[in-house]
Amino acid sequence: MTTLEIMKSARAAWPKLCAADSQTKNAALIAMAEQLLCAQAEILAANQEDLEAARGHVSDVMLDRLRLTPERLEGMADGVRQVAQLPDPVGRVISRVERPNGMIIEKTGVPMGVIAIIYESRPNVTSDAAALAVKSGNACVLRGGKEAFRSANAIVRALQKGLAKAGLPETLVQLVQDTTRQSANELMTAVGLIDLLIPRGGAGLIRACTENAKVPCIQTGTGICHVYVDVSADQDMALDIIENAKTSRPSVCNAEEVCLVHRAIAAEFLPRLKERLVDDRAAAGKTPVELRLDEAAARIIPGTPAGEADFDTEFLDYILAVKVVDDVQSAVAHIAAHSTGHSEAIVAKDEAAQRAFTSGVDSAAVYVNCSTRFTDGGEFGLGCEMGISTQKLHARGPMGLEELTTYKYVIHGNGQVR
Amino acid sequence: MTTLEIMKSARAAWPKLCAADSQTKNAALIAMAEQLLCAQAEILAANQEDLEAARGHVSDVMLDRLRLTPERLEGMADGVRQVAQLPDPVGRVISRVERPNGMIIEKTGVPMGVIAIIYESRPNVTSDAAALAVKSGNACVLRGGKEAFRSANAIVRALQKGLAKAGLPETLVQLVQDTTRQSANELMTAVGLIDLLIPRGGAGLIRACTENAKVPCIQTGTGICHVYVDVSADQDMALDIIENAKTSRPSVCNAEEVCLVHRAIAAEFLPRLKERLVDDRAAAGKTPVELRLDEAAARIIPGTPAGEADFDTEFLDYILAVKVVDDVQSAVAHIAAHSTGHSEAIVAKDEAAQRAFTSGVDSAAVYVNCSTRFTDGGEFGLGCEMGISTQKLHARGPMGLEELTTYKYVIHGNGQVR
Repeated sequence: MTTLEIMKSARAAWPKLCAADSQTKNAALIAMAEQLLCAQAEILAANQEDLEAARGHVSDVMLDRLRLTPERLEGMADGVRQVAQLPDPVGRVISRVERPNGMIIEKTGVPMGVIAIIYESRPNVTSDAAALAVKSGNACVLRGGKEAFRSANAIVRALQKGLAKAGLPETLVQLVQDTTRQSANELMTAVGLIDLLIPRGGAGLIRACTENAKVPCIQTGTGICHVYVDVSADQDMALDIIENAKTSRPSVCNAEEVCLVHRAIAAEFLPRLKERLVDDRAAAGKTPVELRLDEAAARIIPGTPAGEADFDTEFLDYILAVKVVDDVQSAVAHIAAHSTGHSEAIVAKDEAAQRAFTSGVDSAAVYVNCSTRFTDGGEFGLGCEMGISTQKLHARGPMGLEELTTYKYVIHGNGQVR
Repeated sequence: MTTLEIMKSARAAWPKLCAADSQTKNAALIAMAEQLLCAQAEILAANQEDLEAARGHVSDVMLDRLRLTPERLEGMADGVRQVAQLPDPVGRVISRVERPNGMIIEKTGVPMGVIAIIYESRPNVTSDAAALAVKSGNACVLRGGKEAFRSANAIVRALQKGLAKAGLPETLVQLVQDTTRQSANELMTAVGLIDLLIPRGGAGLIRACTENAKVPCIQTGTGICHVYVDVSADQDMALDIIENAKTSRPSVCNAEEVCLVHRAIAAEFLPRLKERLVDDRAAAGKTPVELRLDEAAARIIPGTPAGEADFDTEFLDYILAVKVVDDVQSAVAHIAAHSTGHSEAIVAKDEAAQRAFTSGVDSAAVYVNCSTRFTDGGEFGLGCEMGISTQKLHARGPMGLEELTTYKYVIHGNGQVR
């Protein structure tokens, strides 16, 4: 089917899902998980073809992301089953008022309609996204990366069998068959067919969506996250938080990229920071962090001099830009000028500094004395995640099932007129 | 100032408002209301100039909308004072969880930032929009219609004096000085300067925003609203609701444009409908409603034969398209194909039909046994309204103060790492 046909058939199927109760949707999810396992041989064979085609063209890290194993497939099926356990966001009454004239107004959670998701090469995103869409009552049109195309097709076929076994249309979950830029553009401009577009990927994809999307769209992902160490900080805590935020998983969007240090403690703290991130790690056989230092920091510790771009770069690597600031207000101002609005942290004992930071920083997640790495649907207790929104409209931060729904007002009366 | 300078200065002023507490904002609103009254002479003089320039170019209805009087100005000041009485949406804790690791995650209401509002000729929108923006902690850039340009400038000058008296920057509320299409386009594409664009106006403006906006945007307004009369309806109630929905104020977006009637009662109900909307009204000296009838209805009562476009037109006039449908499912299907997603009503005693309608109709407001005319911030108990969203992202239906805010997660810990 063409991308247009896929969108139209997903839209045509949606009312059936919209009308399905929680039991039916959960039964479908369990059947989808089962079918993933039943189709193990086909899925792994398709994945093998993807791996062979990709070898030599992509990095080892990419190849590993692309690779499926029986264990990973089992993990994907588990993920789908877990979504079945989550509360149904559809039909929840968000607020209920009885008006003086007797009308009862209920603000009720309802599905968006058809969600399109543009993503890259990890095959598990296919089943995760489909499961979250089905649970939240949305048809989904998936547009994965070309490296994982055969795997994604095999996964979607299995998920569709699960839907059919539960009596729901297979066209509720579909994979776009065109992996060129053309199909992404078709999704971005399908006004009236796509109710929500979620691009999950690098800065280039997000920018293309901001510039071209005519359909409602959620920007996800890019994270230039800051940790500010206040004069009042517990410095041991600050070192623990920074090492965690920078090195526990440098390739993810909630990893720290910039460290801001209060001028009054810079001479004491920066040598400890270098010892912790560079010397100790090297001695322990771990990858040391490259420090990119502004002028003030460079006068205190050795490191790479920071260029202009270093405070506006999502390194996604063992690199940390370091800057000395005058106070919490300067930290807030630097963050306002350079952050992507994802996650920022302050380490401080002083409550006035904490308040200045939490009220002044305009990002999705603002942390006091803990690591930016917690910005995640699971860690926030949402049970799942479709991505992390860095925009302010609709959803901000980790998007769980509720963020995949909208609401409508249902009003019951007995003849009221105005 | 140029439009770009206005946006930049509003953005620069915003942190002061963002940090202001409820008391400061309310004091500013009260001062703004006072200054509106102090500036009565200037505002009425400016309005007189607008009226003189417009006379002969616009309809009498338009002229009346444009006209300010001491009473109307008093009403505007009252409106601003009422916003001061409403609860502050900023800083409200939407949810609070304590995680097993001891982190406390608070989802907290915060302002959007800079809101741009594009609107037409009613001068009161200038003060209403500014008041709602200030209360919700947002700077606002107002772009009114050219007919009301002098009035809007005088109003904004008064509001700015009020802001200054309360110690807030005057640049928090500004009027774009260019009323050509150019300035609307600048607002639509000001990525990074405008956090939310609200176009309030006709279908052409909304379409231009959907097609051109690069900044987050809320579609408001257009309403092709349906009333479906089920076989189980209390027909007297249906007549009351339809007359109210169609004729109480035909020019507004929540007025009924299409009436759907169940086939089994068409022969009985349609003659009563014609009697009520046409004959009785004419006899009482009221404007009769022109009925545009599909074939089945035309076989039962006299009226204008409906053309194709009549079921896709927001008449905003004493015109009602009438169609006979087989059952509630046919009504839902017709609405899915022709509605703008604003407001629809069913008149029915049968609860199964009510449920089929409320679950099947995908509009912002779905009514059972009451008039579509209630879709309004005041009627819903929001206390105010910045417009009615017909989109699904972020806000749907009447937008009050909460809908002008976003949220951020504020997380307190004591050294947690992941």
